[in-house]
Amino acid sequence: MINIRVVELGQHLAGPYCAWLLASLGAEVIKVELPGSGDGARGTPPLARGRSLFFDSLNRNKRSLTLDLKRPEGQAVLHRLLKQSDVLLENFRPGVRDRMGCSDEKLKAVNPRLIRASISGFGQQGEMAGKPAFDIIVQALGGAMSINGPEGGPLCRVGFSIGDIAAALFTTIGILARLYERDAQSGAGRDPAGEPVEIAMLACQVALLENAYARYLNAGIHPEPIGTRHPSITPFESFPTADEPVVIAIRGPKDWPQFCRVMGLAALEADERFAGEAARLEHHAEFYELVAARTRERGREEWLRLLDEADIPCAPINTVPQFAESDLIESLGGLSEVVTESGGTYRFANNPLRALAGAPAEQPAPRLGEHSREVLAELGYEENEIERLAEDGVI
Amino acid sequence: MINIRVVELGQHLAGPYCAWLLASLGAEVIKVELPGSGDGARGTPPLARGRSLFFDSLNRNKRSLTLDLKRPEGQAVLHRLLKQSDVLLENFRPGVRDRMGCSDEKLKAVNPRLIRASISGFGQQGEMAGKPAFDIIVQALGGAMSINGPEGGPLCRVGFSIGDIAAALFTTIGILARLYERDAQSGAGRDPAGEPVEIAMLACQVALLENAYARYLNAGIHPEPIGTRHPSITPFESFPTADEPVVIAIRGPKDWPQFCRVMGLAALEADERFAGEAARLEHHAEFYELVAARTRERGREEWLRLLDEADIPCAPINTVPQFAESDLIESLGGLSEVVTESGGTYRFANNPLRALAGAPAEQPAPRLGEHSREVLAELGYEENEIERLAEDGVI
Repeated sequence: MINIRVVELGQHLAGPYCAWLLASLGAEVIKVELPGSGDGARGTPPLARGRSLFFDSLNRNKRSLTLDLKRPEGQAVLHRLLKQSDVLLENFRPGVRDRMGCSDEKLKAVNPRLIRASISGFGQQGEMAGKPAFDIIVQALGGAMSINGPEGGPLCRVGFSIGDIAAALFTTIGILARLYERDAQSGAGRDPAGEPVEIAMLACQVALLENAYARYLNAGIHPEPIGTRHPSITPFESFPTADEPVVIAIRGPKDWPQFCRVMGLAALEADERFAGEAARLEHHAEFYELVAARTRERGREEWLRLLDEADIPCAPINTVPQFAESDLIESLGGLSEVVTESGGTYRFANNPLRALAGAPAEQPAPRLGEHSREVLAELGYEENEIERLAEDGVI
Repeated sequence: MINIRVVELGQHLAGPYCAWLLASLGAEVIKVELPGSGDGARGTPPLARGRSLFFDSLNRNKRSLTLDLKRPEGQAVLHRLLKQSDVLLENFRPGVRDRMGCSDEKLKAVNPRLIRASISGFGQQGEMAGKPAFDIIVQALGGAMSINGPEGGPLCRVGFSIGDIAAALFTTIGILARLYERDAQSGAGRDPAGEPVEIAMLACQVALLENAYARYLNAGIHPEPIGTRHPSITPFESFPTADEPVVIAIRGPKDWPQFCRVMGLAALEADERFAGEAARLEHHAEFYELVAARTRERGREEWLRLLDEADIPCAPINTVPQFAESDLIESLGGLSEVVTESGGTYRFANNPLRALAGAPAEQPAPRLGEHSREVLAELGYEENEIERLAEDGVI
């Protein structure tokens, strides 16, 4: 359990996902939202029983405090909260945080130990800094879409928001590193909070595609979409069977003879066209035809059984419903249940980090401003002060 | 800078990527490999000037120590190293670490403060624990492949190894959380190293697909591959132009009127079929035809200029070479240069976390066992002892 307080000025995906990860580790997360509208994702469809599933999945285990940060009164409340917090996380466009009374200078004066983390599309400085970014924008610019899809096209977006989620994961790492520096390596004689953690979504794409960049930059290879294949390993792909497709991969030289034998293709083992990874890659088309002709002879379940017995990595291609209803997801603790205040029960993906913190109970995503009065009271605001802030529309 | 020592017993991708992330934050990483072969990825093609680019990209900024961990002499050296280390990271199959003299009990005796981290396909316990996993296996089982590809199929593997990389990112977070607990929150009166950090690749897939799972579990939606689209936002996809495609996304209600105007489709704004996210999603096919008919009238650059002026998120779909050669990747500091001992210069993807640690100079990936003698000398082994270990094939 990480005993810290995180103030999230997040919206949509990257910021809220990062704070969701931190909450899984035991952090207390207070989500600050604009009165009236709140996080734009609160309206993202589909809704279930009136609640946005997009929002509810990402904002579990947080409290919501509404604050009008365009007004000095709202900023004053935020500063009071930040004095008692460890991290301020935001994913506004660069400059917006400053206009909310949260410039770096101001924050250092408010709380010199506060770790500041910002997620943007293109970084906090530079020509592109002010431009709007969205998951598909960085997937398109960074090259991910150009290597995702069937051989020959069409190019596809990765089917989930890896542009945002990767940035959230890198930012979480950055925040934890800063916390460690601040609290476990003190005495370095410098700014306790360190430089701000600034993560650009587009820079994270390059790190995800490190192998594609390595191949282009040092071997002149132009990475392209290759369906279900791997750019360096063969086999490592999906094959048709008499019914549903089966995925097969091997772990280099040690699995190769065994793979040939279990497929009933012992002759391949001595075939020079397929001797070694580089050779198999070069003769992939011939290799695929030979193997696919064999896999088509039997059904998927039979191939899975045979490959499994031979200890060759293999799998069916599950749909989300198939995996959601499987014993395997159950045994991994892959799903989580939350009960809302109205008694509705929702199920969501579990966060693998929760187990590290002893799997604290899941709380449903907050209603907009649900905890405004509670948080203000904890900060020492008197009942009449809270009332006035509410009447004035500050909270 | 995180001043810790990490011992990596990693191979292929997930383990080495995790240690690469930690090295970017300033951690000292010692990669322990089997004499003779080492990390299986050392042979993964393509090679450039005799070096595996797959391996070299992921193993920058590490030292290599060879140890025969099947022999007690090798295990003794490892234990001596672990006494002076903070983290042991491995991605063997469950049980292998135990056979290398590194069971949990043994490690606690060697160094009770050592944080143990394991990455596996399916977790350390359970029916599936012993099964081999590879990126495509978890992408297939967890549902990622089932929602990745053009509408109507064929299903595609995500074009980079997000199965491994996600596990590496989650494990890095777990390790940093444990370090924080150990060194910044001491006195809790329990096991200083905490429970081991155990991350299953397949569990991470569920967390990446949290939105798809939320939609299925609570609204009965069966997520499917949808090409370049987003399941909840419209437009958020690629459109054809007179030349190259253009990607366009909007940020909900506030961008909608502006989008209609800049596309020269002002009539759409009042069209009930497209009033709101849910309506646009329902009538996506009609919407797409109307917009695509318009985007086909002009070239990509003109659309990018118009959309940019209107502050609507938009992008070209870059290939890896296009982005690698762009000013934008340069301004983001997206690439890094390393010079090998033979004078060869290689370029790789940069790690966005490096900036947080003040961007320490990049060191090339080590040759197998390059630092064995150096590391042993640091551990206090005498010259003659090192010689004997070398003669005996222990290092």
